[in-house]
Amino acid sequence: MTMIQEKKETEGTRMPFGDRRDSPFYRRDIVSVLQFSDDDLAYIFDVAHEMREMVARIGAFDLLKGKLLANLFYEPSTRTSSSFTAAMERLGGSVIPINEVTYSSVSKGESLPDTVRSLEAYADVIVLRHPEQGASALAARYTTKPIINAGDGVGEHPTQALLDLFTIIEELGDPQGLTVTMVGDLKYGRTVHSLARLLARYDVTLNYVSPDILRMPESITAELGEMGVVQTVHDDLGRVIGDSDVVYVTRVQKERFENPSDYETVSGAYVITPETMRSAKERMVLMHPLPRVNEISIEVDDDPRAAYFRQMEYGMYVRMALLALVLGKA
Amino acid sequence: MTMIQEKKETEGTRMPFGDRRDSPFYRRDIVSVLQFSDDDLAYIFDVAHEMREMVARIGAFDLLKGKLLANLFYEPSTRTSSSFTAAMERLGGSVIPINEVTYSSVSKGESLPDTVRSLEAYADVIVLRHPEQGASALAARYTTKPIINAGDGVGEHPTQALLDLFTIIEELGDPQGLTVTMVGDLKYGRTVHSLARLLARYDVTLNYVSPDILRMPESITAELGEMGVVQTVHDDLGRVIGDSDVVYVTRVQKERFENPSDYETVSGAYVITPETMRSAKERMVLMHPLPRVNEISIEVDDDPRAAYFRQMEYGMYVRMALLALVLGKA
Amino acid sequence: MTMIQEKKETEGTRMPFGDRRDSPFYRRDIVSVLQFSDDDLAYIFDVAHEMREMVARIGAFDLLKGKLLANLFYEPSTRTSSSFTAAMERLGGSVIPINEVTYSSVSKGESLPDTVRSLEAYADVIVLRHPEQGASALAARYTTKPIINAGDGVGEHPTQALLDLFTIIEELGDPQGLTVTMVGDLKYGRTVHSLARLLARYDVTLNYVSPDILRMPESITAELGEMGVVQTVHDDLGRVIGDSDVVYVTRVQKERFENPSDYETVSGAYVITPETMRSAKERMVLMHPLPRVNEISIEVDDDPRAAYFRQMEYGMYVRMALLALVLGKA
Repeated sequence: MTMIQEKKETEGTRMPFGDRRDSPFYRRDIVSVLQFSDDDLAYIFDVAHEMREMVARIGAFDLLKGKLLANLFYEPSTRTSSSFTAAMERLGGSVIPINEVTYSSVSKGESLPDTVRSLEAYADVIVLRHPEQGASALAARYTTKPIINAGDGVGEHPTQALLDLFTIIEELGDPQGLTVTMVGDLKYGRTVHSLARLLARYDVTLNYVSPDILRMPESITAELGEMGVVQTVHDDLGRVIGDSDVVYVTRVQKERFENPSDYETVSGAYVITPETMRSAKERMVLMHPLPRVNEISIEVDDDPRAAYFRQMEYGMYVRMALLALVLGKA
Repeated sequence: MTMIQEKKETEGTRMPFGDRRDSPFYRRDIVSVLQFSDDDLAYIFDVAHEMREMVARIGAFDLLKGKLLANLFYEPSTRTSSSFTAAMERLGGSVIPINEVTYSSVSKGESLPDTVRSLEAYADVIVLRHPEQGASALAARYTTKPIINAGDGVGEHPTQALLDLFTIIEELGDPQGLTVTMVGDLKYGRTVHSLARLLARYDVTLNYVSPDILRMPESITAELGEMGVVQTVHDDLGRVIGDSDVVYVTRVQKERFENPSDYETVSGAYVITPETMRSAKERMVLMHPLPRVNEISIEVDDDPRAAYFRQMEYGMYVRMALLALVLGKA
Repeated sequence: MTMIQEKKETEGTRMPFGDRRDSPFYRRDIVSVLQFSDDDLAYIFDVAHEMREMVARIGAFDLLKGKLLANLFYEPSTRTSSSFTAAMERLGGSVIPINEVTYSSVSKGESLPDTVRSLEAYADVIVLRHPEQGASALAARYTTKPIINAGDGVGEHPTQALLDLFTIIEELGDPQGLTVTMVGDLKYGRTVHSLARLLARYDVTLNYVSPDILRMPESITAELGEMGVVQTVHDDLGRVIGDSDVVYVTRVQKERFENPSDYETVSGAYVITPETMRSAKERMVLMHPLPRVNEISIEVDDDPRAAYFRQMEYGMYVRMALLALVLGKA
């Protein structure tokens, strides 16, 4: 847990309710999934599950009333930004939206450390989306308020990885023993890299289904191999779908192919249709980080195993949990 | 009322207060003015009037506390967006603003149905502005949360039509027997088309004053004629202003004219000045959907009959009413 | 106090709590620092100090619950916009953000008076940032709701001037007898002009340190000279830093120089480093309106005398005070 930095309590920073200042998450930054112990993960998911039940029962509540979230997005991501906004507002807190950074002083040359040190004068917690790897860790070093990484380029997007795992747990229970099949662009997909690393903590089997040029990077397969994870590689989903508890689909982008006709050749092979789903188990989930283009045909949406829209909702609960935790209120 | 679709109650969708779940508006979409019965209209305006009185008395209240509105604008409309935001916030609810759609995933090819199905994971009601006719009806088919149409291209803008009629009622009382004169661009003005259709439900006389090339479309005059509405057509406001209870002015856009000099010739004829108002009744209202350019001279603004800024305020009350109604709280 | 215009109480405008409607600030516009008497300033700073203590103790409170602020920005200013948003939300109020004015009807030719008259239908107070001098005074003439000037081009930015002075008071106490040194671009810096004028009300000494072509304008030095302020002019900070209670640094912009090599020659002379600070008093403050580029080296940030990030926080308290005052609640 070396990446978790305890924040100094400073004058001007205050936690009026104070009920859970003893929590190991209070005042911590959320920068990487690597920072969490197994117990941390279990605790986050417990709180997220409580959030789900509270929302189902009463919709919203005032746990973070009077708290302010600065939603600092250096690149647009409507989905992530909206999810954090909804999470904060369902907990009774308020949001300072900072989306137009290209038009503002932060694009006139002000450094990221200066920007977050200014924002911490206003906000109790800062959610940061930035195109450069390491931006969140950098920001975290300069502010006494908690930073939550909402994606830093090719770096990490820890709340996405957490919501993916939370989705699996909520839908299927304990991940131990599950077979998870990842489909599509496994080379460039930050999402599947982080999820694979998180799943490696459990006794899972991972199947990788992709075109040859979009295989899971060897750095990751080697890392997971050392941890004892069973991994298999395939060109064709048909071979493994029948054994899969989870099928996680990502988009194969045309731009990844030098020769457009190569794209045309392979892309169809990774499209999920009702026909595909007929080979799948009765109890399994089909996931996708969204937005989708055509990797999953819309005819599949009504299949109860299609979990990708529920995934969005689980994301809100995970973010509610993290906000409450770092603000000492969960 | 065929366009009103009852939403299925799903797990994850919840109405904690539940006082008015028996309301015919609860969980309904607001897509078109055609969906409302006369009783529906009367009910909406009663609630909007109550909202007006509540705001006058206490400014804001917590009827929708804990509810979230996703304000999804695919094209900018500061006025409409601000009005819905104010309406939600005056009722104690919160807003997820989604204005930068051109920069976000929704512009990277994600379909409207996918976007609203994602947003319904976060929000309790979705307000949608979209450049394409039918967008709101499409969105409504795909989400279980209520959709409110905030304008869909050349289609409808039902809350504008409702606020126009509500303005007339609040300012002058029962519309029965009123003479309403519409001035300016009657050919392309979505606003006057919708208002004319709404007014046709009452025993009104409609005067149309416009340049020859911007007449009210025959499709509408024929439809209203069949309903027994008395309609007259004029080039000149002077003929009818003295008999008008309502003068509704719209902008004549230069771009509508092939020959710019034709524009210069006619545009002046439709400008309202203090001189114009001297011919008007003492008890009447001058309306405009705003923004205005020069169709009404600013010297008229202080005339108590100039109702166009009050119109904005009535719009907030109508939107407060609709939000409360579809969320089962009015 | 001629610039303070009392707003007429109109139907539809309401102050539910009403505790301090007798305040001289209730329903006033905040357009210029010139509008304030010395007593006004003392009162504002008392309230701002109370805000600081309340935030330190409980973070946020519901003084402005149910109140709506329209944050109308015709040009981007993330820092100022976020500060007002935070101020309103920490007081329990809500914000209508209107940032994308270039995309909206306000850029389609609608006049500023029409825009604010529309917005006052929704909001209780309007914060206005506009590139043209006099915009706030113009807006104030047309609306019955209070306007707060958040910068009007080369005109004024009164809340910046107030927060600068408030910073000095909170950090050092009574300004009487202080020596304040202004460094950098004193010719074009709206910030230092306003602050100099405000400080002239106290018995202060002002040192101006700048390149020759960026001297404090004679119009200002003459005005302050008549008020009896001791003013000195320098090329070099070294001469005066040892006597300064406040060093206020502004950015020297390359674009101000006809010959870029002139810029290179002088710019280094106005950079504050730890070495510079060694000549400064033990009890003094180093200020900067931010964003900084390289006028203050980041090694200085940890110096307890470096007050520029605390300045941001003081800005929030001043804006909380002004919002509460004009809404009759302080």
